[in-house]
Amino acid sequence: MNKKQLIQLVEEMTIDEKINQLLQLAAAFYSDKAEEKTGPMSDLGLNQDIIDTAGTTLGISGAKEAKRVQTEYMKNNRLNIPTILMADIIHGFRTIFPIPLALGNSWDEGAIEKMAEISAKEAAVSGLHVTFSPMVDLVRDPRWGRVMESTGEDPLLNSRLAAAMVRGYQGENLKEDHMRVAACVKHFAAYGGALAGRDYNSVDLSERQLREMYLPGYKAGLDAGAKLVMTSFNTVDGVPATGNEWLFRDVLREEFGFDGVVISDWGAIKELIAHGVAEDEKQAAELAIKAGVDIEMMTMCYPNHLKELIDEGRITESLIDEAVLRILELKNDLGLFENPYRGADEQLEAEVILSDDHRQIAKEIAQKSMVLLKNDSILPLNAQEKVAIVGPGAQSTDILGAWSWQGKKEEAISLVEGAHLLSENLLVATEKFDYFDPSEVAINEAIELAGQVDKVVLALGETDWMSGEAASRSDIRLPEKQLTVFAKIMEKNPNVVVTVYSGRPLDLQGIESAKGIVQAWFPGTEGGSALAEILWGRYNPSGRLSMSFPETVGQVPIFYNVDNTGRPYESAPEEKYVSKYLDVSNYAKYPFGFGLSYSDFEYQDMRTNSDTFTKEEPLEVSITVKNNGQVAGEETVQFYVRDLVGEVSRPVKELKDFQKVWLEPGETQTIRFILSEEMLRYVHKDYKVKSEPGQFVVMIGGNSRDLTTMTVRLND
Amino acid sequence: MNKKQLIQLVEEMTIDEKINQLLQLAAAFYSDKAEEKTGPMSDLGLNQDIIDTAGTTLGISGAKEAKRVQTEYMKNNRLNIPTILMADIIHGFRTIFPIPLALGNSWDEGAIEKMAEISAKEAAVSGLHVTFSPMVDLVRDPRWGRVMESTGEDPLLNSRLAAAMVRGYQGENLKEDHMRVAACVKHFAAYGGALAGRDYNSVDLSERQLREMYLPGYKAGLDAGAKLVMTSFNTVDGVPATGNEWLFRDVLREEFGFDGVVISDWGAIKELIAHGVAEDEKQAAELAIKAGVDIEMMTMCYPNHLKELIDEGRITESLIDEAVLRILELKNDLGLFENPYRGADEQLEAEVILSDDHRQIAKEIAQKSMVLLKNDSILPLNAQEKVAIVGPGAQSTDILGAWSWQGKKEEAISLVEGAHLLSENLLVATEKFDYFDPSEVAINEAIELAGQVDKVVLALGETDWMSGEAASRSDIRLPEKQLTVFAKIMEKNPNVVVTVYSGRPLDLQGIESAKGIVQAWFPGTEGGSALAEILWGRYNPSGRLSMSFPETVGQVPIFYNVDNTGRPYESAPEEKYVSKYLDVSNYAKYPFGFGLSYSDFEYQDMRTNSDTFTKEEPLEVSITVKNNGQVAGEETVQFYVRDLVGEVSRPVKELKDFQKVWLEPGETQTIRFILSEEMLRYVHKDYKVKSEPGQFVVMIGGNSRDLTTMTVRLND
Repeated sequence: MNKKQLIQLVEEMTIDEKINQLLQLAAAFYSDKAEEKTGPMSDLGLNQDIIDTAGTTLGISGAKEAKRVQTEYMKNNRLNIPTILMADIIHGFRTIFPIPLALGNSWDEGAIEKMAEISAKEAAVSGLHVTFSPMVDLVRDPRWGRVMESTGEDPLLNSRLAAAMVRGYQGENLKEDHMRVAACVKHFAAYGGALAGRDYNSVDLSERQLREMYLPGYKAGLDAGAKLVMTSFNTVDGVPATGNEWLFRDVLREEFGFDGVVISDWGAIKELIAHGVAEDEKQAAELAIKAGVDIEMMTMCYPNHLKELIDEGRITESLIDEAVLRILELKNDLGLFENPYRGADEQLEAEVILSDDHRQIAKEIAQKSMVLLKNDSILPLNAQEKVAIVGPGAQSTDILGAWSWQGKKEEAISLVEGAHLLSENLLVATEKFDYFDPSEVAINEAIELAGQVDKVVLALGETDWMSGEAASRSDIRLPEKQLTVFAKIMEKNPNVVVTVYSGRPLDLQGIESAKGIVQAWFPGTEGGSALAEILWGRYNPSGRLSMSFPETVGQVPIFYNVDNTGRPYESAPEEKYVSKYLDVSNYAKYPFGFGLSYSDFEYQDMRTNSDTFTKEEPLEVSITVKNNGQVAGEETVQFYVRDLVGEVSRPVKELKDFQKVWLEPGETQTIRFILSEEMLRYVHKDYKVKSEPGQFVVMIGGNSRDLTTMTVRLND
Repeated sequence: MNKKQLIQLVEEMTIDEKINQLLQLAAAFYSDKAEEKTGPMSDLGLNQDIIDTAGTTLGISGAKEAKRVQTEYMKNNRLNIPTILMADIIHGFRTIFPIPLALGNSWDEGAIEKMAEISAKEAAVSGLHVTFSPMVDLVRDPRWGRVMESTGEDPLLNSRLAAAMVRGYQGENLKEDHMRVAACVKHFAAYGGALAGRDYNSVDLSERQLREMYLPGYKAGLDAGAKLVMTSFNTVDGVPATGNEWLFRDVLREEFGFDGVVISDWGAIKELIAHGVAEDEKQAAELAIKAGVDIEMMTMCYPNHLKELIDEGRITESLIDEAVLRILELKNDLGLFENPYRGADEQLEAEVILSDDHRQIAKEIAQKSMVLLKNDSILPLNAQEKVAIVGPGAQSTDILGAWSWQGKKEEAISLVEGAHLLSENLLVATEKFDYFDPSEVAINEAIELAGQVDKVVLALGETDWMSGEAASRSDIRLPEKQLTVFAKIMEKNPNVVVTVYSGRPLDLQGIESAKGIVQAWFPGTEGGSALAEILWGRYNPSGRLSMSFPETVGQVPIFYNVDNTGRPYESAPEEKYVSKYLDVSNYAKYPFGFGLSYSDFEYQDMRTNSDTFTKEEPLEVSITVKNNGQVAGEETVQFYVRDLVGEVSRPVKELKDFQKVWLEPGETQTIRFILSEEMLRYVHKDYKVKSEPGQFVVMIGGNSRDLTTMTVRLND
């Protein structure tokens, strides 16, 4: 269909059909089992007519079921408008990839695009059309459970990875390529700023911070062509996003030029009442439609009140028409008018989903996502060494992480399973080892085994329900008994490598005396095999943190790109009256960008092609990286800049670019970065984005802390 | 002098004299000992001419010395303009009162006014003219060391107490009443919002939060007539306050109509360079003078660069003239042109300072400031009971707290000294008990004593250097060994009352099994006698927290007047998808407004005079409070309101008024509050302050958590 035909279709719709087009209902309403449907129907107080014309659905999958629902839906739909099947495919459909925060640690756009492409393919053959991904919320507080869904704390890295995900999900042509799904950038905006790291809490920040730090990631996802945007649960400048006209009309639509579909998060329109900005569902509907929220997810404010609001003159029908048109355009963009079943295909489903190929790629991406945090010459292990693998994570398949809807733990590879493929010198426990309350027998067995081997791999961590939505923690240490077990095993055998499964950066103080620490996150279906290959040196660790690891929760929020203060600690570390704590450093335990390798990379000979540069002639900055180690490996060369004087206080450093380089032992490569005037623009007092001439420090290195620096000048 | 004469005086001044008038130098520059003066002079690179015309001084005191400096200064000053002697008199001069956060716990405007009056008197006879108080920074993060200087987390309470302090310092007529000093509201603005609770760190908040929560306290101090305002060290919307034209010109001067003197905090003009908004001292001077900062404290940006800036046309001389005029007006307001020595008086100094009368009032105010947090029928003690007083705080006179410049520890009364006046059945330790690392002998003695008595008073806490400026902590628990000692003593004798000296709300989880807990803050010179009188029931505790005590640092920032979320925990406590942590409650351990009494107050019969009210006819809300206890006592009846629907999300409750009531055993009183439309105004989307008709919940009770509620309606 073309736009004219779509507009005509809107004109043919009754007002009820139009309003229902704005409603999204969950799978249960489309069940062919009456008993699954009746309860939800009476809960929401809706009738079959509404179900038959509700514009989109949530959480239906499986090619056969998808086809059945679409067939049934269209049969009952006067104008033969197909529905859209949407769902949360966050880090894989059935083949589960590492959680997004782990993906962020790969700093690998290609890998992430591939992850999204595979996720899309598995989802598409299962009948889905839209995924609620990428989540692009900048995160700085590890207490918040949803940090696991974000790629991290940096606007540039988040932007690049968001764009990669959108490309991977959507491909080049959604209409033709039915192995792709539409992407939804979320949560607009600044959901990651939740006060005190508590999920759903209010967010307060300046418009400056919002624009400088939080919005770029979303914008990058939109610029990459994402078809949808989801509202966030939080307030932005006091107004809940879902009713925030400024945020959606002025910023998203006008400034960013977004003309796709805006969908509320689950129940978020009705929550305008709880937020205290709407008196009732009617006012909630009014605020949301005025803000430009096209789709209402799972509440009935629109169906129950929009007509009344039009009749009372509080809103115009054209508001509804524009929302309906956007939804129909999305259906058209997906090719649903031509083929309402789209990718749904039972045969492909059987072939594609969780294929060996997908598992292999999931393993490779999991390897790229893991970060070697510490290595006192204990890793890699070799197959001749006798190794015990103990602790709650050893045989656990609870390694998918939150938001892995179709993922199945029983399909996941545990660390022990992965290790068995690599070494025959393994001792593993027979007793189940609980994450929180391991039995005495299990603990004793672990200690026993530790005493019989050269090296111990102690697999610790969080369980999957400890992060994700509505899963915030005030204490970000490992569960207490794990720390006790660690201490006991260290007494028995100090050659301990700790592996950590988690959905957030943890305070790892309790295990820092281990000789090796590998941050494995929730690595997904092939997590155990990936982790084993890192431990035994089949894969040389290359992950770099995309979110700071605090020393203690008492430092949060903590992030590398802080504004400078008037009394910087660095200027006089021995002084009392500088910005610091009495009892802990200002710095992350493991900073942004950090990660070790089995190689040993040396940076030397940093140069610029000039001391000055201009808008017309950018600067070239180069550095030579050498692999002094015995094994080949990949380094992530990071390029940071500091603007020494701005109209407002500027961050002490900001990531501006990065490159991955593969170096054989002894190999040297020169890496070149370009610094253009455009990269130096920032939000000025008046919110205009521009730069000024002046001095800048350019920094290159393997993490955000250890950097080689030079000072250059931007001239007019 | 009149204004015309002052203007004329400005005209007579040379440009150098004018610029130097804007400089404040510390005591050392005015020393009559060459060796004290030479070092600072060469550090700042200044000459005797500048010293002789620098407009104001910092930290000179003592009547004799003050007179000497003034005499010398005027002798060398061509136009005979006196200098002003300023200093930080924060909670008492020599008679030290409780730290301001403790004063906040008194909720007693009269007491605080008295504290300020006495502080002023002692300072004035010692020759001082200006104190850098009140500090009115709203505080929500107990990690920040300067919470001890604030009266707490509530805009209304802070406002009332700031006004009381200003009245107390300044009296009715500064020009005539030389026993008063001018007050300086600080730190403008929002210094308390320091990121991650780290002193001097950047502050980021929305203009809405700034206006709604942070500014009212300063405004109240100005409305009460404070003569000066000090800039804060932090950024406000990205721009350091000291160079923030919007903040000082638009908000402070234009909106608030403040026409007094603005002074930089120590070194803050030069720090614009470190903040990265000024390239050098010259640009720092330009930014600060343009922002309207009249006095530069202890750096030389103004003297070294203002003339040059005028010559280059970057600033106009009128900017200097207006600043000089404001300083001269302050000198005139203080009566210094008529009597440059003002209150300085050696004889009065000997009589007034640390007089018995002042000590007595300091004790009474300390009593009002202490908060009984827990009492499982263990308090009050009686003189017949055998009591051991042990722990680091028992004999400590380290109880003045930070910012007690002229206070002397040796003049302070320890808890043991105070207790000896009340009971003869005391056992006290002979070994010194360290706050951090008590010796085995000291610990054993404490345990020993605990075994020999009916009840144990275990005096724990922080030392004074653990709070105040540049004294932030990431860990807000008691020092670890104190917790160990507590546990050991509890084993020996569970009848333990813990008293806590601290400069911030602490995480008290480690001692919560004590039968009694008294929060004594840093109570000042008479702290030990005040605390003993509370323990032995001579004073019935009446303090109420003005800052929330978190359960754990993992909850911060924590405060009672939070905005509601879209998924309030209270609406469905059993649900997963509501705003909460997995591992700790959303609430403070001890909430704002909380404090126990030896009386037992019951609230009953809440009434309104109508269900509705209007702008013209306010609402009257009443409640009856009864003392069901055996002793007379004072209750602080607190009146909170919630606006159910606003244009922006509104706090779940806000303190609107409070009354103190004294009730004999069995006595009943009816307390009336008036709710006017004006009290319901808030900052709207467009920053206009107004109200709308609608429903409001009115709440009355003895703390912010336990409240009786009614719903009323404001009509048009």
